[in-house]
Amino acid sequence: MSAFRTIWTTEDNYVEVIDQRKLPHEWVVEKLVSYKDAERAIKDMVVRGAPLIGATAAYGVYLAAREGANMEEAFAALRASRPTAVNLFWALDRMQRALDNAENLVETAWTEAGNIVEDDVETCRMIGVHGLPLIEALSQQKNGETVHILTHCNAGMLGCIEWGTISSPIYQAVQKGIKVHVWVDETRPRLQGANLTAYELTRHNVPHTLIVDNQGGHLMQHGMVDMCIVGTDRTTRIGDVANKIGTYLKALAAHDNQIPFYVALPSTTLDWTISDGLKEIPIEQRNQDEVRWVVGKSKATGKLDEVLICPETTQASNYGFDVTPARLVTALITERGVCAASEEGLLSLFPEQRK
Amino acid sequence: MSAFRTIWTTEDNYVEVIDQRKLPHEWVVEKLVSYKDAERAIKDMVVRGAPLIGATAAYGVYLAAREGANMEEAFAALRASRPTAVNLFWALDRMQRALDNAENLVETAWTEAGNIVEDDVETCRMIGVHGLPLIEALSQQKNGETVHILTHCNAGMLGCIEWGTISSPIYQAVQKGIKVHVWVDETRPRLQGANLTAYELTRHNVPHTLIVDNQGGHLMQHGMVDMCIVGTDRTTRIGDVANKIGTYLKALAAHDNQIPFYVALPSTTLDWTISDGLKEIPIEQRNQDEVRWVVGKSKATGKLDEVLICPETTQASNYGFDVTPARLVTALITERGVCAASEEGLLSLFPEQRK
Repeated sequence: MSAFRTIWTTEDNYVEVIDQRKLPHEWVVEKLVSYKDAERAIKDMVVRGAPLIGATAAYGVYLAAREGANMEEAFAALRASRPTAVNLFWALDRMQRALDNAENLVETAWTEAGNIVEDDVETCRMIGVHGLPLIEALSQQKNGETVHILTHCNAGMLGCIEWGTISSPIYQAVQKGIKVHVWVDETRPRLQGANLTAYELTRHNVPHTLIVDNQGGHLMQHGMVDMCIVGTDRTTRIGDVANKIGTYLKALAAHDNQIPFYVALPSTTLDWTISDGLKEIPIEQRNQDEVRWVVGKSKATGKLDEVLICPETTQASNYGFDVTPARLVTALITERGVCAASEEGLLSLFPEQRK
Repeated sequence: MSAFRTIWTTEDNYVEVIDQRKLPHEWVVEKLVSYKDAERAIKDMVVRGAPLIGATAAYGVYLAAREGANMEEAFAALRASRPTAVNLFWALDRMQRALDNAENLVETAWTEAGNIVEDDVETCRMIGVHGLPLIEALSQQKNGETVHILTHCNAGMLGCIEWGTISSPIYQAVQKGIKVHVWVDETRPRLQGANLTAYELTRHNVPHTLIVDNQGGHLMQHGMVDMCIVGTDRTTRIGDVANKIGTYLKALAAHDNQIPFYVALPSTTLDWTISDGLKEIPIEQRNQDEVRWVVGKSKATGKLDEVLICPETTQASNYGFDVTPARLVTALITERGVCAASEEGLLSLFPEQRK
């Protein structure tokens, strides 16, 4: 459905990704020829978004095999490239299993990484199939008037391979002729909403409006939001959701104004081993300069630049994620269907996870 | 107490203010010689913060008298310079009353504007006197360990003349040797926290850390905030609080985590004529480019610049304020004392407002 994918293979069997740090201002493609390229691409956020991180790590394993690297070291390095994304660990475990009995490491890794990519495309498509009726129902309630959807960060196709998670129901609604409009949280500090969500909605002709992260509460108080939908980097057995910092604040506002708050997720981001998200999910602390400096296209030079927004001496704190307790989540939208954000809800879709 | 004031008179009886849009990177003083300078200074946010807006408007009336302007036109223009700040209307009404029976317009306006300034200094000092015990009590509860205070926007001395509103208890706590640390919300879109609060806390040696507006919820969930304190542009008879966009989200998080949420205000920002803040306070919509472009000091050139953070074609929405319902406010700190955010609470301190 999308005009492009976020990761693809080249004729000489290497891998290319878009340097998403330069979007929306520049379209720069980066070629990954070593597992260290993949590791760096994940760590430096050239690629971001749980499924795309997983796919990049999977191809990282392939590149390690191809260059004859120490596979144990390669797995460890890739595993350490981002601490919060459970999808990363899932993809690496899947690659490990495939390689365990492989005769030809390189070929097997190539095939399995490709499978991970195609599985993600289908997973995201199905999230859209299951999420679409939620938007459709709101549209009917409003007699076909525009459904206003608020989202935080980017869990669109740029964070996946194609379709995206939160964007899949939206794109499928648009294809069906349902009127939607998206409020795009800019998502400080790294501005994935302003940079990426606004970009991909523009490329797919979805009406949208950029807002600062501070504005969503006001919009909800005044009936200007019909639903919220966000992605997640890690969801616990009971439905606690770790997502981009600030998600919790929007969930509180949605709850206070009786607005449905949905989380769209591929089941690969479910972490069945933990329950209490607040206590059990480690939250990554990132470089303070992501807060102190803001990246964008300079008015003076027309080039990408950074501006300092505080006194030179001021220090910043920079947690990357927060945890939204399940009690604030209306429902989870997965590739198998929609369920309550609770252990029972999740087990109804994933009965194989009953202990 | 402060090292400087935010508005002062010159030897030739004009008025000077700091161009706060250039802080913290440049210290630029602007001389106001016509009421239109004052009007523009308020409208363009050269000056901001309810009390400073009021003082600037008061001196605007003086300048209008001095230049022999049509006083009705001058009052109307100054009144229209910012729609939300009730303090502006209060200061202009006070100037009007003083001028009603004045023999010498210019002299009377000069004196009354000076009185408004000195009254604000004393009001802010008293807010500190009444707010200090709240910080002191938390410090004692923590056996003298650091009290962590979160604030949004700038309701510090830069928004007033001296002392500030939320900063007055903080500065007085520091003077008394109480250990405090301030979490400074950067406060998008205009970054008054990063630009101004961080600047004045630096100038006054108060330990602080800059955070994105998205981070406060996470800090509160993890016990890293002992109290919140914010200012207000307008407070209703029942204690609903209009303040910088995003305040409501922090109040929700404080409530969800049982953290006290205080609002510091000079009584001049009380609007006794209205009750329901959500329905009755008009919320200013500002230029979308405040969202699309971020101002700061360029890494490339070392000069003030702006960077575009979204696709060229993306439109933004920009509400300046939101309303925090009284139910989320632990208490109001005024120059007369601390009270519950309710009509009864407010009337206990301001009995003259009983109908």
